Amino acid sequence: MTTIDLATKGGFTLPGEAGYENLTWQLAERWGADAIRDSDGTTLSDEILSAGFDIYSTICLVRIDNEWARANMDKLQQNYLMSHPVFAEGDTVCIDPLSGYFREQFSVNTHDDPHTWWQVFDRTSGEEVSADRWDFDANTGLVSIRGTEEWHRYTLNFLAYRIWEAISMYNHITNDWGDREHLMPIDPIYPETQAFVLGYLKQWLQDRPRTKVVRFTSMFYNFAWFWGDPEKQRTLYSDWGAYDNTVSPYALREFSKAKGYELTSEDFVNNGSYCSSHNVPSRRYLDWIDFVNDFVVTFGRKCIDVVHEAGKKAYMFYDDHWIGTEPYSEQFQEFAFDGMIKCVFNGFEARKCAGVRGVETKELRLHPYLFPTGLKGEPTFTEGGNPALDCKTFWVNIRRALLREPVDRIGLGGYLHLVEDFPDFVKAVEELAQEFRTIRDLCRSDRPHAAPFKVAVLTSWGKLRSWICSGHMIQGLELNEIIESLSGLPFDVVFIDFDDLLAGDLSEDIRVIVNCGRAYSAWSGGSHWENQRVLERITDWVAKGGGFVGVAEPSACEYGGQFFQLSHLLGVDREIGRSLSREKPAFSTESGGHFIMKDVKGETGFGQEVGNVFVASQDTRVLAERDGSVRVSTHGFRAGRSVYLSGFRFSPQNTRLLHRALYWAAGHERGFGVWTCSNIHTECAYYPGSGKLVVINNSPQAEETSICDAQGNRVEVRVEPFGIRILDV
Amino acid sequence: MTTIDLATKGGFTLPGEAGYENLTWQLAERWGADAIRDSDGTTLSDEILSAGFDIYSTICLVRIDNEWARANMDKLQQNYLMSHPVFAEGDTVCIDPLSGYFREQFSVNTHDDPHTWWQVFDRTSGEEVSADRWDFDANTGLVSIRGTEEWHRYTLNFLAYRIWEAISMYNHITNDWGDREHLMPIDPIYPETQAFVLGYLKQWLQDRPRTKVVRFTSMFYNFAWFWGDPEKQRTLYSDWGAYDNTVSPYALREFSKAKGYELTSEDFVNNGSYCSSHNVPSRRYLDWIDFVNDFVVTFGRKCIDVVHEAGKKAYMFYDDHWIGTEPYSEQFQEFAFDGMIKCVFNGFEARKCAGVRGVETKELRLHPYLFPTGLKGEPTFTEGGNPALDCKTFWVNIRRALLREPVDRIGLGGYLHLVEDFPDFVKAVEELAQEFRTIRDLCRSDRPHAAPFKVAVLTSWGKLRSWICSGHMIQGLELNEIIESLSGLPFDVVFIDFDDLLAGDLSEDIRVIVNCGRAYSAWSGGSHWENQRVLERITDWVAKGGGFVGVAEPSACEYGGQFFQLSHLLGVDREIGRSLSREKPAFSTESGGHFIMKDVKGETGFGQEVGNVFVASQDTRVLAERDGSVRVSTHGFRAGRSVYLSGFRFSPQNTRLLHRALYWAAGHERGFGVWTCSNIHTECAYYPGSGKLVVINNSPQAEETSICDAQGNRVEVRVEPFGIRILDV
Repeated sequence: MTTIDLATKGGFTLPGEAGYENLTWQLAERWGADAIRDSDGTTLSDEILSAGFDIYSTICLVRIDNEWARANMDKLQQNYLMSHPVFAEGDTVCIDPLSGYFREQFSVNTHDDPHTWWQVFDRTSGEEVSADRWDFDANTGLVSIRGTEEWHRYTLNFLAYRIWEAISMYNHITNDWGDREHLMPIDPIYPETQAFVLGYLKQWLQDRPRTKVVRFTSMFYNFAWFWGDPEKQRTLYSDWGAYDNTVSPYALREFSKAKGYELTSEDFVNNGSYCSSHNVPSRRYLDWIDFVNDFVVTFGRKCIDVVHEAGKKAYMFYDDHWIGTEPYSEQFQEFAFDGMIKCVFNGFEARKCAGVRGVETKELRLHPYLFPTGLKGEPTFTEGGNPALDCKTFWVNIRRALLREPVDRIGLGGYLHLVEDFPDFVKAVEELAQEFRTIRDLCRSDRPHAAPFKVAVLTSWGKLRSWICSGHMIQGLELNEIIESLSGLPFDVVFIDFDDLLAGDLSEDIRVIVNCGRAYSAWSGGSHWENQRVLERITDWVAKGGGFVGVAEPSACEYGGQFFQLSHLLGVDREIGRSLSREKPAFSTESGGHFIMKDVKGETGFGQEVGNVFVASQDTRVLAERDGSVRVSTHGFRAGRSVYLSGFRFSPQNTRLLHRALYWAAGHERGFGVWTCSNIHTECAYYPGSGKLVVINNSPQAEETSICDAQGNRVEVRVEPFGIRILDV
Repeated sequence: MTTIDLATKGGFTLPGEAGYENLTWQLAERWGADAIRDSDGTTLSDEILSAGFDIYSTICLVRIDNEWARANMDKLQQNYLMSHPVFAEGDTVCIDPLSGYFREQFSVNTHDDPHTWWQVFDRTSGEEVSADRWDFDANTGLVSIRGTEEWHRYTLNFLAYRIWEAISMYNHITNDWGDREHLMPIDPIYPETQAFVLGYLKQWLQDRPRTKVVRFTSMFYNFAWFWGDPEKQRTLYSDWGAYDNTVSPYALREFSKAKGYELTSEDFVNNGSYCSSHNVPSRRYLDWIDFVNDFVVTFGRKCIDVVHEAGKKAYMFYDDHWIGTEPYSEQFQEFAFDGMIKCVFNGFEARKCAGVRGVETKELRLHPYLFPTGLKGEPTFTEGGNPALDCKTFWVNIRRALLREPVDRIGLGGYLHLVEDFPDFVKAVEELAQEFRTIRDLCRSDRPHAAPFKVAVLTSWGKLRSWICSGHMIQGLELNEIIESLSGLPFDVVFIDFDDLLAGDLSEDIRVIVNCGRAYSAWSGGSHWENQRVLERITDWVAKGGGFVGVAEPSACEYGGQFFQLSHLLGVDREIGRSLSREKPAFSTESGGHFIMKDVKGETGFGQEVGNVFVASQDTRVLAERDGSVRVSTHGFRAGRSVYLSGFRFSPQNTRLLHRALYWAAGHERGFGVWTCSNIHTECAYYPGSGKLVVINNSPQAEETSICDAQGNRVEVRVEPFGIRILDV
């Protein structure tokens, strides 16, 4: 048993910075960089460009030329907004569409006929106000509504141009760029824009002979990010997966040609909730996604062909303007991207990148970015910041995911000079880069030991949004927490939707289905659970020996006198106040002993848990409760097994609980324990090809742990704080 | 300023017990009894009957003669039950209707044609199974269903006779009556039953020449109480206000004649949730209540006429078989009852009795009952019990209500001999009886000082269920906790429903409307909040200066893109997961200072509070929060004011908070403080007619408090634990 050497070079992309050439060389050496990139706000000097590194150049095609944008203001990107509600105090109401919105981000579209493209709603009666009862005055910019009813609430759905591209706006404001020009996003849906973009791209490639990799940021449409009047509320709406920003009259007309029916403004505005990724997508919305995806792939491929013709590689940045690319769609491979770069804080984000098919090179952009402050305004590379600790904290979560599914490269972004005052950070990156290369090399030709069955996560989005949930980590969103735990657990995980379930497309090696989320969310499934075919199918599957793990409000919707539609499988249901007079069976809680709870010490913390969960079967075994509400339980149904958890939060203890719950639900608990660490703060991966055992310590303390091999022999090992050990076994 | 003498005699009803005559005399003397009653399970001896006391005799007309019942089994009372669900594992399903139910309580009605009166449902598809696809076999007692779909969930709605009257069953089992006969409830809906009952009653009255008061227990139909297989679950369903027990084919036919349409079994079964008082009553259910109420009043009046003809008084026991009497209905006075007796644990129950119009005498039956164990099986008059403390604990809450609205009498029930071993209890009752008489005498001719405005509680039930909520106290049910606080606060409280609101029937002196409860409950209002006329009306009322206090999920239903339909008034709304991508405005919490929070020390505890409440207006003032969720807030809308509380629990501190919130919402905070105690553990009532000030101490410690009179003079007073002081001021 020996510790092997760590690799020392390559697979690292450094953000270069003109004027800091010496620092660039020095850090490239220490971090083992083989590629150098520019960033939004930095340039690379000739000296850097000619130093022998692979050069990445970023381009965001929708903000390439503000002059052209200014000359084509009718081709700026648009979106629907709902005006803030106004209460009628008489028989007329006047609405200022952009009141409460950030007027530097939006401008009302007065080019396209308001009466054709806008809608006014009486949200109190729920009815649309007919077009003959309202007018838009282009001079005042106001909409006036006649014949209003007193104290009814009126809103306007209207089209707005985005006159400041959101990511550029964010960088500008975060980094205090002062009077630097506001970049406007152009919409490539128009043939004129496409011609301009392709021409510009060709010239841009010609101008960059040293560039080896073109990093597209990303394609054309940013995720939804509506800002508010800064005096009142900076951010009004943000959804990493939403298609709000893809709308225009042109696209809507093309859509109706393609799909044979028309969408309205309300399809996008949806009572002011817009088309959030958290909500069960309608068939109409899925059609729109499909339509936009089709366009983005088709025109995106033309751009990538131009890059390839210029002898360069094309990488996609899987963030920002990723909308329409859908890396988990069948169409994605048609882009012919050579690589994908994903910025990551977490394990599940690493898996999100690692799991994409159809690109050769996958690269993670690590946090913290070399910006003075973080995404939430917290200090990083300024006084009070501790970027070395931030970096390690993010890394331990990313590292465990990379042990399960590797990527090819890592890198950083931002202003290199900011690291000068943070030698700890330089050292931390040096160490993690070495760890990364070692893990990558181990995984390349080998798959680590994993459970002998697959786990399927069932949501309304299914495979299309594998490992995505709502995008970035949302604390307390149960599915986010679950997939973060799963990202480093030894399971082959697949994501399925209700159509997969109905089609009977479940592969035979799936032994457990996980359904996790709050009632009516896209994650739990909402009205899909009213579909009798869904209920038949999953009941049959469990009855025949399948496992089901439900978290928070699995299978929840009000239907047929129950709330959890799978309460017959789960053995629990939730009282939401519709059957308060029904007495709930008493239960006793088993103390310890159950396989699932073996590594739980004290009370499990599941975050903001679901309450009022009651036992719905005589056979339910309750393993944890609080205030009479079930928190952890198991239940058998014919040959199958189910587990219920009232919430979830990513933590070492809960990760182990989930690990055990999945094994138990699969009926595989006898197989549990092989290549599993005794100490929950440590995890390991065994690579049978090379006979290497990687043991990681996720905690800031040194930890002792023991690992059991397939023959039952134990390996005892001590791992340094946040450390890694690689053993031949 | 002097303490006045306490009254010493009368207004007290003692439960006599044959064989314990000396004890009866002794306690009658100490407790000041002027009346003696029998109880279920006791009799009065001739010695007691002729001792000069007013004699109360209890009669429950539906269980008077088991022999007649046995001879008329088709005229026993019935109800619809839903069988426990059975999952189809093939194309047939067999249902044993009473499986899981208490077979000593129910017997399947095989007299009336099952295919006419029963329904089978596929609860998975939500569809009724047509009558040609199922059969009932009278020999086996089983229902078989053909053509079932695999893994669908099937249930049967069927009619069951009740073969053991519920209250008698409860008393029998609680008091171990062994092989004593099971009394069966007969249904007076049939003319034959009516003839028998009236005849029996006449004879019964003739046989009781000493009886002065006939205590009806109560009229004909008990509240819903379905028991289960004792091996599995004792109680399956209980609802103090529900009409489930009033059903029969005869009544259903009469209903369709009266109302012009037919009800089905599913109108009662309602997916297994039955017609719970907690749920918003449908128009059809309200029609049924009206139909039953009409019958109960009509035939009930005939019974009372017989009593009056016999020269006796008729009192109603406002519990048990109270269904159909509806003491807060317009019809109630037509009964011509002379008195009403209500068993009480709490303040709001005392108000429930005290507030009834149309009876001369109101009497409270205090707890604990003279039974070995309490309603929940806890020891009272057995080892481990402390009936004196129980009695005081109940009394302090009842007493504060009686200061606001008096009753005429109090009394006890049960087995007198049980008190022999509990001298503390005898003393406690002696003291409280004296307190009661004093308060009664003070209130009789005088109304205590109260706020100069009325408070209206808005629910789906309105006036019909004034002070009732779900019947007895349900811990944690917000409206129960609110009305318990209100019961002793100096407000004139009225209960209104949504029809009252729409009719514009709000009296001018109503200054605050309270809406309190969980979403979709009868208390909050559910779908009534989708009614634009309701929203117009209440918005207008508040805009013109009204006050609105919302508790938990006021005005909540999913509609128009918001959850609290009055969020424009309240200034807050609740995120239930449908608009997660909408960013919520940041807020800061005001520390102290606000009028409402003046007497709050530390954190207010509101029980199981509503979370994820966010600020929906720039002008909302947040006075308390937890984990970013608003707990107490205020908001102005035009000339009106609103207060939001995220939950409520009856406690001295919260009662004061509510007191202040109502004054603030009414815009009357300058008037607050007069005749109000400085110490929240004490309360007072000032009677301007007599110039008496009653100060009560609700706590088990002695308390010092000061009271401000209308001129601003302060009265300082010390009150003993649970004590009372009566001062001339």
